[in-house]
Amino acid sequence: MSADPADRIEELTGLLSRLPGLGPRSARRVVLYLIRRRGTLMAQIARSMEQVARDTRECRQCGNVSMDELCAICANPARANGQICVVEDLADLWAVERGRAFRGRYHVLGGTLSALDAVGPEDLGIPRLLDRIGPESVSEVILALNATVEGQTTAHYIADALHDSGVTVTGLAQGVPIGGELDYLDDGTISAALNARKRV
Amino acid sequence: MSADPADRIEELTGLLSRLPGLGPRSARRVVLYLIRRRGTLMAQIARSMEQVARDTRECRQCGNVSMDELCAICANPARANGQICVVEDLADLWAVERGRAFRGRYHVLGGTLSALDAVGPEDLGIPRLLDRIGPESVSEVILALNATVEGQTTAHYIADALHDSGVTVTGLAQGVPIGGELDYLDDGTISAALNARKRV
Ligand SMILES: [Zn+2]
Ligand SMILES: [Zn+2]
Repeated sequence: MSADPADRIEELTGLLSRLPGLGPRSARRVVLYLIRRRGTLMAQIARSMEQVARDTRECRQCGNVSMDELCAICANPARANGQICVVEDLADLWAVERGRAFRGRYHVLGGTLSALDAVGPEDLGIPRLLDRIGPESVSEVILALNATVEGQTTAHYIADALHDSGVTVTGLAQGVPIGGELDYLDDGTISAALNARKRV
Repeated sequence: MSADPADRIEELTGLLSRLPGLGPRSARRVVLYLIRRRGTLMAQIARSMEQVARDTRECRQCGNVSMDELCAICANPARANGQICVVEDLADLWAVERGRAFRGRYHVLGGTLSALDAVGPEDLGIPRLLDRIGPESVSEVILALNATVEGQTTAHYIADALHDSGVTVTGLAQGVPIGGELDYLDDGTISAALNARKRV
C-alpha cells in the first residue's frame, strides 16, 4: 500500500468545508457524492476550476473578471454608451447584468470605504474611475451600491469626487422589490417606498 | 478578446449547482468566493479534486476507496480479526470508523436490494462477501445497515445467505442515540428502545 486515499479525501473535505454555506458535514456529503462520480462530475469540476483559477484575471479598466486585458463588456464598443455603473463587487455586477436593463460599462470597487479596515479610495480604484470619465466620454455614473451604511458612505464619497466633473450621478431607486411581500421587508425599505410613492 | 470567462464561470456554477445541498444561488456564491481566492483556495481545491478523481479506486476486496488493489484497512493485518462489518455505502463506513469501536474489516454493498430498481445480490457484491468467509477466517458478520425497509430487507437476505456458513451474524443494537432527545426521535426508535430496555 503506497498511500491512504482517506488522507486526500480528508484534505479535500477540509478544503470544501471552508466554502460559504458548507460545514464539515455537508462537505463530507459533497465529497462522497463526488467520489461516486469521480470519472464524470468530479473530473469536470476539477478541470473547470483549474481553468478558471488559471485564466481568470481582472479587467484593467473596470475590475470585472476577464481572460484578457479588457473584459468582454469593456471590449464591446456597443457598451460604450457614456454610462458607468459602479458596483461593490462581482456578484452585484452579475445581478445587474441578469436584470438586462443596463447596457453601459461597469466599475467594480471590490468593497466599500472603511476607516476601521483601512480601506481608502485608492484601494477601491476610485481615482481610476475618475480617470475614465474623459477618455470614455462618460455622461452618467450610476451608483448601484448596497443600501448599507458603508455602501451609502462610499456612494456619497464618489458623488462628491465627481461633483466638478460635469457627469450626472444617479443612484438606484429605492422601493419595494417586485414580488416582494411587505411582511418580509425591513421598515426602512417600506418608509423609503412610501416617501417615494407614485400616483398610479 | 479571445473568450469570455463569464462562460467558463457560468459552466463552473452549473457544475457546482449539481452538488447536494447547493442550488444555483449558493453555487454562484461559492464561485464568487473562489474567484476572489483563485490563486489559493480555488487552485488547491482543483488540484485536490483532480488527484482524488484520478487516484481513487475501489478496494477489490471490500469496496472501500483505495489507491491500490487493497484499501488501507484490508491491507492492515491487524484488522484481520475475523469480523466483517457490512455497510451500505462509504459514508456508513466512515461513520463506523469515526466511532473507533470496530477494529475488523468492511464490506461495502454500494446500495440495498431493490426489486423496483432491479438491484440484485450480485450488484451489491453479496456473492463476493460469501467468498470472503473461508479465506479470511471470518467468525462474525456485523450487519450495520440502515434501519430502513430496504436496509432491513437486505440484512435479512444476507443473514439467510450466511445461515449455513457457521459465522455469527449480528446487527447494530437499536435504541436512543447518545445525547438524543426523545422529542426528536421517531416513534419506532422509542418503541425499539423500550422493548430493548435494560436494568440500570
Ligand atoms: Zn472591463
Ligand atoms: Zn478493502
